[in-house]
Amino acid sequence: MDLSDFSAALSAALADLRYGETPQELYEPIRYSMSMGGKRIRPLLTLLGAHLFTDDWQVALKPALAVEVFHNFTLLHDDIMDQAPLRRGQPTVHVQWNPNVAILSGDVMVVRAYELLFDIEPALLRELLQRFSQTAAEVCEGQQLDMNFETEAHVSIPQYLDMIRLKTAVLLGFALELGARLGGASPDDADHLRRFGTDIGLAFQLRDDLLDVYGDAATFGKRVGGDIVSGKKTYLLLTALEGANEAQKATLHHWLGLNTPETAEAKVQAITAVYDELQIRTRTEALINEYFQDALYHLDAVQAAPTARKALLRGLALQLMERES
Amino acid sequence: MDLSDFSAALSAALADLRYGETPQELYEPIRYSMSMGGKRIRPLLTLLGAHLFTDDWQVALKPALAVEVFHNFTLLHDDIMDQAPLRRGQPTVHVQWNPNVAILSGDVMVVRAYELLFDIEPALLRELLQRFSQTAAEVCEGQQLDMNFETEAHVSIPQYLDMIRLKTAVLLGFALELGARLGGASPDDADHLRRFGTDIGLAFQLRDDLLDVYGDAATFGKRVGGDIVSGKKTYLLLTALEGANEAQKATLHHWLGLNTPETAEAKVQAITAVYDELQIRTRTEALINEYFQDALYHLDAVQAAPTARKALLRGLALQLMERES
Repeated sequence: MDLSDFSAALSAALADLRYGETPQELYEPIRYSMSMGGKRIRPLLTLLGAHLFTDDWQVALKPALAVEVFHNFTLLHDDIMDQAPLRRGQPTVHVQWNPNVAILSGDVMVVRAYELLFDIEPALLRELLQRFSQTAAEVCEGQQLDMNFETEAHVSIPQYLDMIRLKTAVLLGFALELGARLGGASPDDADHLRRFGTDIGLAFQLRDDLLDVYGDAATFGKRVGGDIVSGKKTYLLLTALEGANEAQKATLHHWLGLNTPETAEAKVQAITAVYDELQIRTRTEALINEYFQDALYHLDAVQAAPTARKALLRGLALQLMERES
Repeated sequence: MDLSDFSAALSAALADLRYGETPQELYEPIRYSMSMGGKRIRPLLTLLGAHLFTDDWQVALKPALAVEVFHNFTLLHDDIMDQAPLRRGQPTVHVQWNPNVAILSGDVMVVRAYELLFDIEPALLRELLQRFSQTAAEVCEGQQLDMNFETEAHVSIPQYLDMIRLKTAVLLGFALELGARLGGASPDDADHLRRFGTDIGLAFQLRDDLLDVYGDAATFGKRVGGDIVSGKKTYLLLTALEGANEAQKATLHHWLGLNTPETAEAKVQAITAVYDELQIRTRTEALINEYFQDALYHLDAVQAAPTARKALLRGLALQLMERES
């Protein structure tokens, strides 16, 4: 078994998934949103988590889909809130249909995500539903914090890291924990995997912040500097603001105050120049590496799993760390 | 035990319920929305359903709250979709905060509703979660149909009745089924109670349609004729359109086409006059009574419950049928 085998199993299961039929205004957007693609990282983590402990990793297949359906629900509702016109190059649901359809289709996706967990064996059902619910609420908390930060004058780096932990990382952690428990992991081993996943999630989001500025536009698939143009309080910006001298601070605030399309390119250049002076790229890469090393520590600490199977997870994590898009 | 004892138990349990703390933009709207009041009919049905079969009806208390939290979630998201400014005389969440906060708080309410079911005994947990999920999806389907009907030229009476069954009635049916199963009812008895609840729900919604036109403004608490002014395709309007002669049809279509504030009062009078000619009030009351009789048939058919306890449910149903607000 290698990564592509698990990916193929997931693709097949996703293609077979039924969400409902009528009214079609409710269910067509779900199919649309689920078929937009994406890396399917979360359900892959669930399968790899199970595979660490059992050959019968397929026991985790439906629960893995629950995580993916829930993740896509969050994208659908987040896109309404962010008024995002595109997702993976296609019109978002609230644009292709309308915001009401997007709200309601998203609501049903939460219900369908829960349903995909109900075949979990009775001995684990309650515990894993609780953990799923806790994680789901945390993801919503993270999204609320992210929205709050847009209008807050000062956001500290710990606050920012806590926000991305909730919004992004806990679901990756849960995806692994879920698979591990379904595969028969002890609570201790499952917890190490949860922490591995959370670390990878944090590193993954920081990598996203980094690629926005230092990515290659063609590979990254988005316009480089989008976060800078919108003035988003990313790890890069917050670190720069914290480390800047008076002149650099003035430059940052000057450009952050300019929001016309004509100034966008100069804004990206000027702010990136300050980032370069302050070695923000190196500092962000250092933090990513710290999370990655902590993740590997937790992966090593897992007792009851063969090294060869751990290597698959390590490989996936490395891919995520080194990704250019 | 009478109805007020169960209501008091519910009020106390609702007051003790915790949804979360931070960020407060996420949790404050949930507390606000849950404290707006309302009749608490659904959780009351759950408690009465359990009490039919056991003295230990408190086993159904947390699950009853799940139904109430879910119901309030649907109100919260429906109010966004309907752009409703007020709910029970208070500003709706999307007005008091903003639509994004309303979307996200509602999302967390679905999660909290599920959580309130997780203490159900293992032997029933999976079945009742499945039924809750099925019901939840049906409620969303009903809301989507309701929105679709706004822009559809023709809606048939069976289509309308199916919409209110999904949007309103199935949750009342499930509330009773849930309580019954938790109280130890056989699947057969629980199913009769589900059908009792669904019938009551249909009658309840039709009573709502009727009160909009024939209610007393002071008692009803809303402006009489609101549905007529907005041109909502209620049971009354659809029945009138179906039974109208050419002249009456012309009158209805003429007034339905007028949507200025100045014509509102005359519109209500003119359309109500056609309703009167066609005896729409009597016909609606007849259908309400049919559903009520069918409900009583299913209540009678419940085997393993004392008549005195059934009388409580019958009394509540009668209250709902005869309500003036």
